[in-house]
Amino acid sequence: MNTTNGASGALAGVRVLDLTQFEAGPSCTEALAWLGAEVVKVENPQGGDQARAAWTEKQGIDSWYFLIFNANKKSVTCNLKTEAGLQLVKRMAREADVFIENFAPGVIERLGLSYDVLREENDRLIYAQVKGFGEGSPYEDFLAFDMIAQSTGGLLSITGEPDGQPNKPGATLGDTGTGMLLAISILGALYQRQSTGKGQRIQAAMQDAMLQYTRVAYAVQASTGKPAPRAGPKIITGGTAPCGIFPCDPGGPNDYVYIYTSRAGNHQWNRLLSAIGRADLHDDPRFESPAKRMDNQADVEDLLSQWTRQRNKREAMEILGKAGVPAGAVYDSMELYNDPSLEERGIFQTMAHPDRGDFKMPVWPVKMSGSEVPLAAAPLLGEHNEAVLGSWLGIGADEIDALKADGVM
Amino acid sequence: MNTTNGASGALAGVRVLDLTQFEAGPSCTEALAWLGAEVVKVENPQGGDQARAAWTEKQGIDSWYFLIFNANKKSVTCNLKTEAGLQLVKRMAREADVFIENFAPGVIERLGLSYDVLREENDRLIYAQVKGFGEGSPYEDFLAFDMIAQSTGGLLSITGEPDGQPNKPGATLGDTGTGMLLAISILGALYQRQSTGKGQRIQAAMQDAMLQYTRVAYAVQASTGKPAPRAGPKIITGGTAPCGIFPCDPGGPNDYVYIYTSRAGNHQWNRLLSAIGRADLHDDPRFESPAKRMDNQADVEDLLSQWTRQRNKREAMEILGKAGVPAGAVYDSMELYNDPSLEERGIFQTMAHPDRGDFKMPVWPVKMSGSEVPLAAAPLLGEHNEAVLGSWLGIGADEIDALKADGVM
Repeated sequence: MNTTNGASGALAGVRVLDLTQFEAGPSCTEALAWLGAEVVKVENPQGGDQARAAWTEKQGIDSWYFLIFNANKKSVTCNLKTEAGLQLVKRMAREADVFIENFAPGVIERLGLSYDVLREENDRLIYAQVKGFGEGSPYEDFLAFDMIAQSTGGLLSITGEPDGQPNKPGATLGDTGTGMLLAISILGALYQRQSTGKGQRIQAAMQDAMLQYTRVAYAVQASTGKPAPRAGPKIITGGTAPCGIFPCDPGGPNDYVYIYTSRAGNHQWNRLLSAIGRADLHDDPRFESPAKRMDNQADVEDLLSQWTRQRNKREAMEILGKAGVPAGAVYDSMELYNDPSLEERGIFQTMAHPDRGDFKMPVWPVKMSGSEVPLAAAPLLGEHNEAVLGSWLGIGADEIDALKADGVM
Repeated sequence: MNTTNGASGALAGVRVLDLTQFEAGPSCTEALAWLGAEVVKVENPQGGDQARAAWTEKQGIDSWYFLIFNANKKSVTCNLKTEAGLQLVKRMAREADVFIENFAPGVIERLGLSYDVLREENDRLIYAQVKGFGEGSPYEDFLAFDMIAQSTGGLLSITGEPDGQPNKPGATLGDTGTGMLLAISILGALYQRQSTGKGQRIQAAMQDAMLQYTRVAYAVQASTGKPAPRAGPKIITGGTAPCGIFPCDPGGPNDYVYIYTSRAGNHQWNRLLSAIGRADLHDDPRFESPAKRMDNQADVEDLLSQWTRQRNKREAMEILGKAGVPAGAVYDSMELYNDPSLEERGIFQTMAHPDRGDFKMPVWPVKMSGSEVPLAAAPLLGEHNEAVLGSWLGIGADEIDALKADGVM
């Protein structure tokens, strides 16, 4: 199902020359593609983006991972180790609005496609880069992947049980989290260019980007004078009861409901007591204020667990949510995938892929009443060689045949 | 230290009318403010944004949390429960480019400031909303906070030890993660409006937004047919050794180094062996391929732990990183706060606040060569009443005095 509301894409007409691979870069360019930009992946003719083969269970078939992060894009093959290939990229850069790469440190400069080179070709070009560590960092030459960024950016230190080892959040914040911040910056630069007519260089480092998502830790630290802690399922700001997960029937690994009540007063707590049939405790001195409930946290948690254990997580969430108590079931990926509402509302949509068939996947989750936000298949390797080189550069079939014969495409 | 490169802000001239509080909305509008938009918080005269008082240790002084999420903004007080207050917001909406709110479900409509009302005032207005659950969801009327979004959006199910309970990532993805996706959509709509001249309605739901950051789980699930698992410090895609944290001297709660080697061949593994002085194992049959290393994961981990325990995490990271092995120390918030490189590179900057004094905090982490990305203090409550009403509406001191006398401001 495509979401079509009769409007065009917000970024219709914006051309993105995309030399990224795996996830930090591709998640960024995919966000631009959801919004209607024409994103052209430039891939080596020998296999292309490494994500095509990584974690695939069938050799020669693009991985699910690749499909998820490359919806709506086009693919052109180009061997950057040939002079003709480099010239082709430069010609495309002249026609592009955005250029983006996430090669290992130093690679793009050694290829001869640095910012200083491409700005000479096109001073309107927005030249964006993702690296693991920032320019000027002692680690600027180091390789990084999602988990390295999350470690060095502070995320592992605040995730996990208080008495356990650091844990990695399951979310790929080092990759997609960085990609989203880069997309914001690119969009800002595109907006600015409408008045200045000039492009610029934009650099995102994955370690640095992690701080954007963990800023609460710096508020905690400013208050306590100590590094922000790990809090298991609770929150690192602490000081509130109830705030955590409570076990539900039938006791599987994700059969829990999160329950929280505001510490700004008793209104949510009193709703909670009524909802669980314990209005008799409205005046209990153990629970008469947020501070008292924190002092008697074990009693609060016993009381709620007795109630939650009698219900499954959906029932518990519905009863509490309807009563105006913040509560949420701990859903796993399969439960979300099978949730009829998420599909009806278009949060999951189905990609029709030539090799994979129909694949239901999460799409851009923000609703826009005035912009088309479609879903089209992730491209096969080199699928758009003719179409893109034709429309961007006016290159015809003969020249493409020659480029192929020369091993450029 | 402000970052000033002689350019103007990317969004200079963009006016944002900001009725949000706490974090999901404020993190979005702060991103727009970093990029140069004029963001005006509209706050109730009795205390304003609840985040000012939440987690503050000094009554009447804005919390660190508030400072972090409201840099570069302005504040105007307005009592939305008065007719004159509502009229004032409508007048401001006529002058604004973006309107944004994250009240509880139904509140903005009951106030009489729905999309249908404000589009009549200004059809160029981009009207953005954040809710916990999407319009049409069975939970659309439920309250939500960061942890509720993370629970119901699948994040807790993939975070924590494999044999332990679900854990909440320390990062506030439900809030800031949603805010970043909303910022991308707003920027797309602003770009589009340059050609269409029309605004639109944009809606982000915190549960839905979580899927954007956990899409790897849906690739895992597509491969295995099972819900994505919890993997402790490892990765939910699994299947790679080494991939995880290794204990370092002196054995504190965050004294670990993350080590990973690619499963596309032996090049990183062989570098690792050389770096730890075990080149003698290059031909060891236990480790001769990625699959063998996975089969002998315990031996791989023993071998590396013996080496890491002899070093602190910084030494371990430097030796491995220089050797071309992906490796990262597990840094805590205090170590990052005190990191000289992060400060020199402007990732941490100091806010000069009238009540709090100097406060060093993380700022917008993406570098933009052609845009000014300044840091100015978070506003005191109502600090810009005169300035904003004067410049936006031409309202003078007399009228403001009358509004104050009437309890509107």
